[in-house]
Amino acid sequence: MKARVFLVTGGARSGKSTFAQGLAESLSRERTYIATCPVLDEELAARVAIHRRAREGRSWRTLEEERDLAGALGLAPEGVVLVDCLTLWVNNLMYDADSRGLSLTEGHMAALAGGVVQAARARRGDTVLVTNEVGMGIVPDNYASRLFRDLAGRCNQIVAAAADAVVFMVSGIPLWIKGDQAVG
Amino acid sequence: MKARVFLVTGGARSGKSTFAQGLAESLSRERTYIATCPVLDEELAARVAIHRRAREGRSWRTLEEERDLAGALGLAPEGVVLVDCLTLWVNNLMYDADSRGLSLTEGHMAALAGGVVQAARARRGDTVLVTNEVGMGIVPDNYASRLFRDLAGRCNQIVAAAADAVVFMVSGIPLWIKGDQAVG
Amino acid sequence: MKARVFLVTGGARSGKSTFAQGLAESLSRERTYIATCPVLDEELAARVAIHRRAREGRSWRTLEEERDLAGALGLAPEGVVLVDCLTLWVNNLMYDADSRGLSLTEGHMAALAGGVVQAARARRGDTVLVTNEVGMGIVPDNYASRLFRDLAGRCNQIVAAAADAVVFMVSGIPLWIKGDQAVG
Repeated sequence: MKARVFLVTGGARSGKSTFAQGLAESLSRERTYIATCPVLDEELAARVAIHRRAREGRSWRTLEEERDLAGALGLAPEGVVLVDCLTLWVNNLMYDADSRGLSLTEGHMAALAGGVVQAARARRGDTVLVTNEVGMGIVPDNYASRLFRDLAGRCNQIVAAAADAVVFMVSGIPLWIKGDQAVG
Repeated sequence: MKARVFLVTGGARSGKSTFAQGLAESLSRERTYIATCPVLDEELAARVAIHRRAREGRSWRTLEEERDLAGALGLAPEGVVLVDCLTLWVNNLMYDADSRGLSLTEGHMAALAGGVVQAARARRGDTVLVTNEVGMGIVPDNYASRLFRDLAGRCNQIVAAAADAVVFMVSGIPLWIKGDQAVG
Repeated sequence: MKARVFLVTGGARSGKSTFAQGLAESLSRERTYIATCPVLDEELAARVAIHRRAREGRSWRTLEEERDLAGALGLAPEGVVLVDCLTLWVNNLMYDADSRGLSLTEGHMAALAGGVVQAARARRGDTVLVTNEVGMGIVPDNYASRLFRDLAGRCNQIVAAAADAVVFMVSGIPLWIKGDQAVG
């Protein structure tokens, strides 16, 4: 069976991480978690700790990679990999570019997202990618937020188009909007 | 037939209240409306008046309860109860805690939401709960908004998991994402 | 075959415009694009240019109409018309009213949206309308944004109720939430 790519998307606190973890655990007993989140403050540390506790005693190993996600996927061992989440990765890339006086374009974002999918495809084992829907509110009043929203949306489109299955979480209910758990 | 619990969710002005009212009216001729909204200003008063007019002449009695929703459900008469809405209830609880120098945690929120579902289950008659999707926009730039978004999302997950049926409204179109009108 | 009305909705960068263009191109070889967007700054000009390039060499003619959308639909030639997008049209109407010291009400908005659907129905050819979901984030902290959100949501409800088919885009994946491409 070829390696499959699953995308789990939804709003904040829609149950994405919990669902994605359960999906990944159903796919393999060899489990690697790639965290894209730099722990910058207490609030984030608390969120990270909640997710970490949910994996404890369930045979997960954890890698941290804020920017080179394709590289991290290439280095990950066999079995299932869970990446949580793409939206923070986009955020990290955008602020990294900004700190160098550069601006991340949608075209560049699309290429980077394509690279992540290719790296997942090249793995020996399934990959579950978690992302966020961030574009269904009022238009943000500042340029950086609009750019982030556009980059995150572009990333989601690229990954969803290439994924074998896409799940949209609403109030904790999973909607399989492309493929299903039996894809492949 | 056992008492059923329906959850109607969606964004602002997605047609949730109108749909929920129609659903409730199809379930029973004995109709109680529980409003969770404290009328704080003219803008809210206008919104409340619109919903109130839509119920006039249709045999609805109205109760107001800003915080003890489980208690109000226990006191409600037989027939259908429509609660509009859980998101304002979460907002009320959060600001009540804040006014006492306390902070509402997600764990506490989950317990309170569970209590509401249990109270609905214990009723003699169906209950229709209205809530909001608030987590699909850009991450809010202040802590209180992020906390509110997380608490509202957690509440929605707890209630949706326990509900017999869940409807997601998009542009006024109802999507039954769990169960259907014939559940039970 | 009678003229059909399609509504394509979704968040920012969810793939609405690309999907709507492909849908429209599948419906007719006579193609008119109605842009509702006033080009106010460089950022918008760049967005407009991206969409314009996507139509180049594919037999599209372009009309611009910021406010009288029903009138523009009446003047459009036979074949398919693609309107992108209703949300900017609502925005234009709201700011036009504001500049005259008036306020656009939901009732007025509903009537104007109804007029657009009627004009589309009266055409000789199909019409594809693009709109945005803007109500699934945190409640905006200013009155104008809340009013805009309510007006845009009301417009979407009116048009979706009257449309033959409605597509909800999530991460570039089309969900036909009412009817399908074969309607009519």
